[in-house]
Amino acid sequence: MSAPKEMEEGTALTPKFDADGLVTAVATDAKNGDVLMVAHMNAQALARTIESGEAWYYSRSRKALWKKGESSGHVQRVLELRVDCDQDAVWLKVDQQGAGACHTGRRSCFYRRVPLGQTGTVRLEFADAGRAFDPGTVYPGKK
Amino acid sequence: MSAPKEMEEGTALTPKFDADGLVTAVATDAKNGDVLMVAHMNAQALARTIESGEAWYYSRSRKALWKKGESSGHVQRVLELRVDCDQDAVWLKVDQQGAGACHTGRRSCFYRRVPLGQTGTVRLEFADAGRAFDPGTVYPGKK
Repeated sequence: MSAPKEMEEGTALTPKFDADGLVTAVATDAKNGDVLMVAHMNAQALARTIESGEAWYYSRSRKALWKKGESSGHVQRVLELRVDCDQDAVWLKVDQQGAGACHTGRRSCFYRRVPLGQTGTVRLEFADAGRAFDPGTVYPGKK
Repeated sequence: MSAPKEMEEGTALTPKFDADGLVTAVATDAKNGDVLMVAHMNAQALARTIESGEAWYYSRSRKALWKKGESSGHVQRVLELRVDCDQDAVWLKVDQQGAGACHTGRRSCFYRRVPLGQTGTVRLEFADAGRAFDPGTVYPGKK
Protein backbone atom coordinates (compact mmCIF):
# COMPACT_ATOMS: atom_id res chain seq x y z
CA MET A 1 0.00 0.00 0.00
CA SER A 2 1.11 3.57 -0.59
CA ALA A 3 1.95 5.61 2.51
CA PRO A 4 -1.38 7.48 2.88
CA LYS A 5 -3.30 4.30 2.11
CA GLU A 6 -1.30 2.37 4.73
CA MET A 7 -1.90 5.12 7.27
CA GLU A 8 -5.65 4.93 6.66
CA GLU A 9 -6.18 1.27 5.87
CA GLY A 10 -3.25 -0.49 7.53
CA THR A 11 -2.87 -2.07 10.96
CA ALA A 12 0.38 -0.32 11.88
CA LEU A 13 0.17 2.38 14.52
CA THR A 14 2.11 5.23 12.90
CA PRO A 15 0.99 8.39 14.71
CA LYS A 16 1.29 11.60 12.73
CA PHE A 17 2.81 13.82 15.40
CA ASP A 18 2.70 17.56 14.72
CA ALA A 19 5.69 19.94 14.71
CA ASP A 20 5.68 19.82 18.52
CA GLY A 21 5.61 16.01 18.55
CA LEU A 22 1.98 15.79 19.66
CA VAL A 23 -1.29 14.20 18.66
CA THR A 24 -4.71 15.36 19.87
CA ALA A 25 -6.38 13.19 22.49
CA VAL A 26 -10.12 13.26 23.19
CA ALA A 27 -11.39 11.55 26.33
CA THR A 28 -15.08 10.66 26.50
CA ASP A 29 -17.03 9.19 29.38
CA ALA A 30 -17.58 5.54 28.47
CA LYS A 31 -20.93 5.62 30.29
CA ASN A 32 -22.67 8.39 28.35
CA GLY A 33 -20.38 9.59 25.55
CA ASP A 34 -19.86 13.05 27.03
CA VAL A 35 -16.57 14.63 26.03
CA LEU A 36 -14.65 15.07 29.28
CA MET A 37 -11.52 16.78 27.97
CA VAL A 38 -9.34 17.44 24.96
CA ALA A 39 -5.59 17.22 25.54
CA HIS A 40 -2.40 16.15 23.81
CA MET A 41 -0.05 13.17 23.86
CA ASN A 42 3.55 12.86 22.82
CA ALA A 43 5.02 9.48 21.87
CA GLN A 44 5.86 8.67 25.47
CA ALA A 45 2.40 9.57 26.78
CA LEU A 46 0.82 7.41 24.08
CA ALA A 47 3.12 4.47 24.84
CA ARG A 48 2.44 4.68 28.57
CA THR A 49 -1.31 4.91 27.98
CA ILE A 50 -1.20 1.80 25.78
CA GLU A 51 0.97 -0.13 28.24
CA SER A 52 -0.85 0.83 31.43
CA GLY A 53 -4.45 1.25 30.29
CA GLU A 54 -4.52 4.55 32.19
CA ALA A 55 -4.44 7.95 30.51
CA TRP A 56 -1.16 9.82 30.24
CA TYR A 57 -0.91 13.18 28.48
CA TYR A 58 1.65 15.83 27.64
CA SER A 59 1.11 19.30 29.04
CA ARG A 60 1.99 22.00 26.52
CA SER A 61 1.99 24.71 29.19
CA ARG A 62 4.14 22.79 31.66
CA LYS A 63 6.13 21.02 28.92
CA ALA A 64 5.87 17.80 30.86
CA LEU A 65 4.46 14.31 30.68
CA TRP A 66 1.66 13.82 33.19
CA LYS A 67 -0.49 10.98 34.33
CA LYS A 68 -4.09 12.11 34.61
CA GLY A 69 -5.06 11.97 38.26
CA GLU A 70 -1.50 11.72 39.52
CA SER A 71 -2.05 14.52 42.02
CA SER A 72 -5.86 14.61 42.21
CA GLY A 73 -6.52 10.87 42.25
CA HIS A 74 -8.90 11.42 39.31
CA VAL A 75 -7.31 8.70 37.19
CA GLN A 76 -8.82 7.79 33.82
CA ARG A 77 -9.04 4.04 33.25
CA VAL A 78 -9.05 3.57 29.48
CA LEU A 79 -11.68 1.07 28.37
CA GLU A 80 -11.00 1.55 24.68
CA LEU A 81 -8.46 3.49 22.65
CA ARG A 82 -8.98 4.36 18.99
CA VAL A 83 -6.98 6.19 16.36
CA ASP A 84 -8.42 8.22 13.51
CA CYS A 85 -8.00 7.87 9.77
CA ASP A 86 -4.90 10.03 9.42
CA GLN A 87 -3.50 9.03 12.82
CA ASP A 88 -3.16 12.53 14.22
CA ALA A 89 -5.84 12.08 16.88
CA VAL A 90 -6.78 9.42 19.41
CA TRP A 91 -10.05 8.82 21.21
CA LEU A 92 -10.08 7.37 24.71
CA LYS A 93 -13.30 5.94 26.15
CA VAL A 94 -12.61 6.22 29.84
CA ASP A 95 -13.92 5.26 33.21
CA GLN A 96 -13.27 8.55 35.01
CA GLN A 97 -12.21 7.80 38.58
CA GLY A 98 -12.97 10.34 41.28
CA ALA A 99 -15.16 13.32 40.84
CA GLY A 100 -14.18 14.77 37.50
CA ALA A 101 -11.80 15.45 34.66
CA CYS A 102 -11.62 19.25 34.75
CA HIS A 103 -9.23 21.21 36.93
CA THR A 104 -12.07 23.70 37.63
CA GLY A 105 -13.89 21.02 39.61
CA ARG A 106 -16.38 19.96 36.95
CA ARG A 107 -16.85 16.45 35.62
CA SER A 108 -16.21 17.68 32.04
CA CYS A 109 -14.19 20.64 30.78
CA PHE A 110 -17.11 21.45 28.44
CA TYR A 111 -19.44 23.05 30.99
CA ARG A 112 -20.49 26.04 28.85
CA ARG A 113 -22.83 26.04 25.88
CA VAL A 114 -22.48 28.38 22.90
CA PRO A 115 -25.98 29.43 21.78
CA LEU A 116 -26.59 28.81 18.08
CA GLY A 117 -28.35 30.84 15.41
CA GLN A 118 -26.79 34.13 16.47
CA THR A 119 -24.55 36.68 14.85
CA GLY A 120 -22.26 39.05 16.69
CA THR A 121 -21.55 38.73 20.41
CA VAL A 122 -22.77 35.53 22.02
CA ARG A 123 -23.08 34.87 25.74
CA LEU A 124 -22.07 31.45 26.97
CA GLU A 125 -24.60 29.49 29.02
CA PHE A 126 -23.46 27.26 31.87
CA ALA A 127 -24.61 23.65 31.46
CA ASP A 128 -23.91 20.69 33.76
CA ALA A 129 -21.56 23.13 35.46
CA GLY A 130 -21.98 22.09 39.10
CA ARG A 131 -18.64 21.45 40.71
CA ALA A 132 -18.04 17.81 41.48
CA PHE A 133 -15.09 18.68 43.67
CA ASP A 134 -13.40 21.71 45.21
CA PRO A 135 -10.40 22.54 43.03
CA GLY A 136 -8.79 24.48 45.89
CA THR A 137 -8.62 21.33 47.97
CA VAL A 138 -7.67 18.89 45.22
CA TYR A 139 -5.14 21.15 43.50
CA PRO A 140 -3.89 23.31 46.37
CA GLY A 141 -1.20 24.92 44.21
CA LYS A 142 -3.77 26.23 41.67
CA LYS A 143 -5.78 29.39 41.89
CA MET B 1 -12.41 38.72 37.17
CA SER B 2 -8.79 38.23 36.16
CA ALA B 3 -8.19 37.09 32.59
CA PRO B 4 -7.77 33.34 33.24
CA LYS B 5 -10.69 33.38 35.66
CA GLU B 6 -12.87 35.19 33.10
CA MET B 7 -11.85 32.68 30.42
CA GLU B 8 -12.88 29.78 32.66
CA GLU B 9 -15.77 31.23 34.63
CA GLY B 10 -17.10 34.02 32.42
CA THR B 11 -19.85 34.08 29.82
CA ALA B 12 -17.82 35.77 27.08
CA LEU B 13 -16.77 33.59 24.16
CA THR B 14 -13.05 34.40 23.83
CA PRO B 15 -11.53 31.49 21.89
CA LYS B 16 -7.86 30.87 22.51
CA PHE B 17 -6.71 30.37 18.93
CA ASP B 18 -3.28 28.78 18.48
CA ALA B 19 -0.37 30.22 16.49
CA ASP B 20 -2.18 29.17 13.28
CA GLY B 21 -5.42 30.83 14.38
CA LEU B 22 -7.20 27.57 15.12
CA VAL B 23 -9.08 25.80 17.88
CA THR B 24 -9.67 22.05 18.03
CA ALA B 25 -13.18 20.86 17.18
CA VAL B 26 -14.56 17.48 18.22
CA ALA B 27 -17.78 16.27 16.61
CA THR B 28 -19.72 13.53 18.37
CA ASP B 29 -22.82 11.72 17.23
CA ALA B 30 -25.66 13.17 19.31
CA LYS B 31 -27.40 9.78 19.20
CA ASN B 32 -24.72 7.62 20.85
CA GLY B 33 -21.78 9.81 21.86
CA ASP B 34 -19.37 8.27 19.36
CA VAL B 35 -16.60 10.60 18.30
CA LEU B 36 -17.11 11.10 14.57
CA MET B 37 -14.14 13.32 13.78
CA VAL B 38 -11.57 15.73 15.16
CA ALA B 39 -10.88 18.82 13.08
CA HIS B 40 -10.05 22.50 13.44
CA MET B 41 -11.89 25.81 13.21
CA ASN B 42 -10.59 29.30 12.59
CA ALA B 43 -12.58 32.34 13.72
CA GLN B 44 -14.61 32.38 10.52
CA ALA B 45 -15.49 28.68 10.69
CA LEU B 46 -16.59 29.08 14.31
CA ALA B 47 -18.70 32.16 13.49
CA ARG B 48 -20.38 30.39 10.55
CA THR B 49 -21.07 27.32 12.67
CA ILE B 50 -22.68 29.46 15.37
CA GLU B 51 -24.74 31.45 12.87
CA SER B 52 -25.89 28.58 10.71
CA GLY B 53 -26.12 25.67 13.15
CA GLU B 54 -24.21 23.58 10.63
CA ALA B 55 -20.57 22.57 11.03
CA TRP B 56 -17.87 24.56 9.26
CA TYR B 57 -14.18 23.75 9.66
CA TYR B 58 -10.81 24.96 8.49
CA SER B 59 -8.67 22.52 6.54
CA ARG B 60 -5.01 22.77 7.51
CA SER B 61 -3.91 20.77 4.46
CA ARG B 62 -5.98 22.75 1.97
CA LYS B 63 -5.65 26.01 3.92
CA ALA B 64 -9.31 26.70 3.31
CA LEU B 65 -12.59 27.14 5.09
CA TRP B 66 -14.97 24.28 4.36
CA LYS B 67 -18.53 23.43 5.16
CA LYS B 68 -18.77 19.80 6.19
CA GLY B 69 -20.83 18.00 3.58
CA GLU B 70 -20.49 20.74 1.00
CA SER B 71 -19.40 18.27 -1.67
CA SER B 72 -20.57 14.97 -0.17
CA GLY B 73 -23.93 16.10 1.17
CA HIS B 74 -22.92 14.69 4.54
CA VAL B 75 -23.78 17.87 6.41
CA GLN B 76 -23.52 18.00 10.21
CA ARG B 77 -26.48 19.67 11.87
CA VAL B 78 -25.21 20.97 15.21
CA LEU B 79 -27.60 20.21 18.05
CA GLU B 80 -25.36 21.63 20.73
CA LEU B 81 -22.05 23.48 20.78
CA ARG B 82 -19.85 23.69 23.85
CA VAL B 83 -16.52 25.30 24.65
CA ASP B 84 -13.98 23.99 27.14
CA CYS B 85 -12.48 25.58 30.24
CA ASP B 86 -9.56 27.32 28.53
CA GLN B 87 -11.50 27.97 25.30
CA ASP B 88 -9.06 26.26 22.95
CA ALA B 89 -11.45 23.44 22.02
CA VAL B 90 -15.10 23.12 21.05
CA TRP B 91 -17.41 20.12 21.17
CA LEU B 92 -20.19 19.74 18.61
CA LYS B 93 -23.00 17.28 19.24
CA VAL B 94 -24.19 16.66 15.72
CA ASP B 95 -26.90 15.02 13.72
CA GLN B 96 -24.73 13.56 10.97
CA GLN B 97 -26.63 13.74 7.68
CA GLY B 98 -25.92 11.19 4.99
CA ALA B 99 -23.86 8.10 5.49
CA GLY B 100 -20.86 9.25 7.45
CA ALA B 101 -18.31 11.77 8.61
CA CYS B 102 -15.10 10.16 7.38
CA HIS B 103 -13.68 10.66 3.91
CA THR B 104 -12.75 6.94 3.85
CA GLY B 105 -16.44 6.07 3.75
CA ARG B 106 -16.92 5.21 7.41
CA ARG B 107 -19.42 6.78 9.76
CA SER B 108 -16.60 7.78 12.15
CA CYS B 109 -12.92 8.51 11.48
CA PHE B 110 -12.08 6.37 14.52
CA TYR B 111 -12.56 2.93 12.95
CA ARG B 112 -9.42 1.31 14.37
CA ARG B 113 -8.81 0.20 17.93
CA VAL B 114 -5.41 0.28 19.62
CA PRO B 115 -5.06 -2.83 21.82
CA LEU B 116 -4.13 -2.00 25.42
CA GLY B 117 -1.74 -3.62 27.89
CA GLN B 118 1.01 -4.10 25.34
CA THR B 119 4.55 -2.90 24.98
CA GLY B 120 6.43 -2.57 21.71
CA THR B 121 4.72 -2.90 18.35
CA VAL B 122 0.94 -2.96 18.43
CA ARG B 123 -1.37 -3.98 15.59
CA LEU B 124 -4.49 -1.94 15.10
CA GLU B 125 -7.82 -3.77 15.05
CA PHE B 126 -10.61 -2.61 12.77
CA ALA B 127 -13.83 -1.82 14.66
CA ASP B 128 -17.14 -0.57 13.25
CA ALA B 129 -15.13 -0.17 10.07
CA GLY B 130 -17.73 -1.08 7.48
CA ARG B 131 -17.99 1.53 4.80
CA ALA B 132 -21.22 3.47 4.92
CA PHE B 133 -20.58 4.93 1.50
CA ASP B 134 -18.20 4.55 -1.43
CA PRO B 135 -15.63 7.33 -1.15
CA GLY B 136 -14.78 6.97 -4.84
CA THR B 137 -18.31 7.97 -5.78
CA VAL B 138 -18.85 10.66 -3.17
CA TYR B 139 -15.41 12.26 -3.48
CA PRO B 140 -14.51 11.50 -7.12
CA GLY B 141 -11.38 13.65 -6.93
CA LYS B 142 -9.92 11.65 -4.05
CA LYS B 143 -7.94 8.45 -4.21
